[in-house]
Amino acid sequence: VKVEGRAWRTIWEEGAGVGVIDQTLLPHRLEVRHLASLEEVAQAIRAMVVRGAPLIGVTAAYGVALAMRADASDAVLARAVEVLGATRPTAVNLRWALEKMAAALGPVAVAARAEVALATARGLAEDDVEVCRRIGAHGAALLGTVPRRGEVLQVLTHCNAGWLGCVDWGTALAALYQWVDAGHAVHVWVDETRPRNQGASLTAWELGAHGVSHTVIADNVGGHLMQHGMVDVCLVGADRVTRRGDVANKVGTYLKALAAQDNGVPFWVAAPRSSVDARLLDGVKEIEIEQRDGRELSHVTGRLPDGTLATVEVLPPGARAANYGFDVTPARLVTGLITEDGLFPATESGLARLLS
Amino acid sequence: VKVEGRAWRTIWEEGAGVGVIDQTLLPHRLEVRHLASLEEVAQAIRAMVVRGAPLIGVTAAYGVALAMRADASDAVLARAVEVLGATRPTAVNLRWALEKMAAALGPVAVAARAEVALATARGLAEDDVEVCRRIGAHGAALLGTVPRRGEVLQVLTHCNAGWLGCVDWGTALAALYQWVDAGHAVHVWVDETRPRNQGASLTAWELGAHGVSHTVIADNVGGHLMQHGMVDVCLVGADRVTRRGDVANKVGTYLKALAAQDNGVPFWVAAPRSSVDARLLDGVKEIEIEQRDGRELSHVTGRLPDGTLATVEVLPPGARAANYGFDVTPARLVTGLITEDGLFPATESGLARLLS
Repeated sequence: VKVEGRAWRTIWEEGAGVGVIDQTLLPHRLEVRHLASLEEVAQAIRAMVVRGAPLIGVTAAYGVALAMRADASDAVLARAVEVLGATRPTAVNLRWALEKMAAALGPVAVAARAEVALATARGLAEDDVEVCRRIGAHGAALLGTVPRRGEVLQVLTHCNAGWLGCVDWGTALAALYQWVDAGHAVHVWVDETRPRNQGASLTAWELGAHGVSHTVIADNVGGHLMQHGMVDVCLVGADRVTRRGDVANKVGTYLKALAAQDNGVPFWVAAPRSSVDARLLDGVKEIEIEQRDGRELSHVTGRLPDGTLATVEVLPPGARAANYGFDVTPARLVTGLITEDGLFPATESGLARLLS
Repeated sequence: VKVEGRAWRTIWEEGAGVGVIDQTLLPHRLEVRHLASLEEVAQAIRAMVVRGAPLIGVTAAYGVALAMRADASDAVLARAVEVLGATRPTAVNLRWALEKMAAALGPVAVAARAEVALATARGLAEDDVEVCRRIGAHGAALLGTVPRRGEVLQVLTHCNAGWLGCVDWGTALAALYQWVDAGHAVHVWVDETRPRNQGASLTAWELGAHGVSHTVIADNVGGHLMQHGMVDVCLVGADRVTRRGDVANKVGTYLKALAAQDNGVPFWVAAPRSSVDARLLDGVKEIEIEQRDGRELSHVTGRLPDGTLATVEVLPPGARAANYGFDVTPARLVTGLITEDGLFPATESGLARLLS
């Protein structure tokens, strides 16, 4: 995906380390950081310089590779996996990537480990790019079939399912990038996505940088737009999908899916096959929703008039805030899933085909 | 309603003028302002020192009274109505109050006008208090009948339907204050209500000051709470109601009503009879929704760590924002209306009874 005409990824090899975009400064400034050691990688994940499940996994894999370059002993390998695994304790992709690295490196002679580690990390990165590219291709083909009211396809999205959370392309936004790159017109309604504002900051920044027409709206507005025929299709990502198609995604997704159903707007979810957790059936009952720090709601960071960043507190002094990070959209509200292997209905039989 | 144990209203007579709460400083600081002249009243309405339809109307009425105290001539009366009417051009209550004042004062001898003006303004204020008190009494009685899962009644509210927008009590929150004052237990989930944050700032402040247990949530969270049985009843205000019961209220209300229906949670709307506009039938088709300044979305005001107020910009530089102020909740999603004359179903026949 492009930033002002130049192709970018969220992570790349440079010199004896990796370069990453410092996502804590978005959407205010685009700055890159060079990470040269295990410690710098761990700190970058901890401080959310990099975020998004796939990107965290790939970054951690490179962290192991950097550790191996310095000292490829069993002790250092074990320590690298332990240090990186503790940076974001609930990140499933992080542990998955570290297990991949440990499995790949364990049997390898110490002398060859640095090279194998780098190749494995690079492979994880390229696999992610390829999965996202294929999701985007299937999604873009779908967008061509969605009935639309005007010349310009009107899409509503929630949170950030874009390339900033992956290595490139993203999931839901991958479809939009490929649709636009093929010369089609689109306008995207971007939910602000309180309380962390990933829509207003990351999605709006991504779309603007790639030249995709968009407008930021409050999370409250999507229902009004759908009532008035101003949305042709909703397109969101997913954190986790149950085997019958219930979708856990950023909190507020469920409310938009209700409005889509009430107004006959298709509601599509783009996610890799790996998001489907076949152990789960009933998402509302079985998926525990993480409660995050209320400070995400009570405090807001932005630019002061002089361009410097500041954080202000918006709640009354002493007010209590609750911060549920995700919600579950029942499968009955989901038109279908866009995966790297094509489109699948959000049903038990549809997902059985995807997983088989 | 009380602030830290002391009874307050939003406007009161003091000396040769009126006192008001400076609502631009809430929820950060409680400060009062003394308004001694027509010009000071007009400026206070313009700068949103006072806000909320009923309060704006009453404040403007006192503005006319202050003008009459200085000079009760026909010319000054006409000028007062004109100056005040221009402060908030779309405020229906403002024009209604000014017409009441003009009608009351026109036939009165100049020498008696100052006294009649003050009495009329005071009458409008007391009428508003009485209407809100009655809405609250009917609403509190209703709350006693709502099935609840635990000892503490769990209520979800959106925006600010409290005393800060009226003279006292409010509408939806009036029911909560009277329920609590009668010794019952309640916990209120307060929608932040982006983009102007009236929930996070005004409602949370009101409830906290009166001692009502509450928790602020992002607007995205209500659906998740209702899916998990954490809301017994939704209770909101209304800006306008059609004769069949479609409800125009702060944007996002519709999304909560959809979630309430999907989870079997009653959804009640508290509003004075004067909110029902019998000329309107289909709210989605017939009510034009105001688009407000995108700056309300792109900029956020709060307290810096040293307690001073600052405004930060949260969107990417140059990003476009759309800001629809209200939405329409179709009557089919509304359990009923709480008015000063009791409870009415949100149907054409129900509202015909209310209006007759």
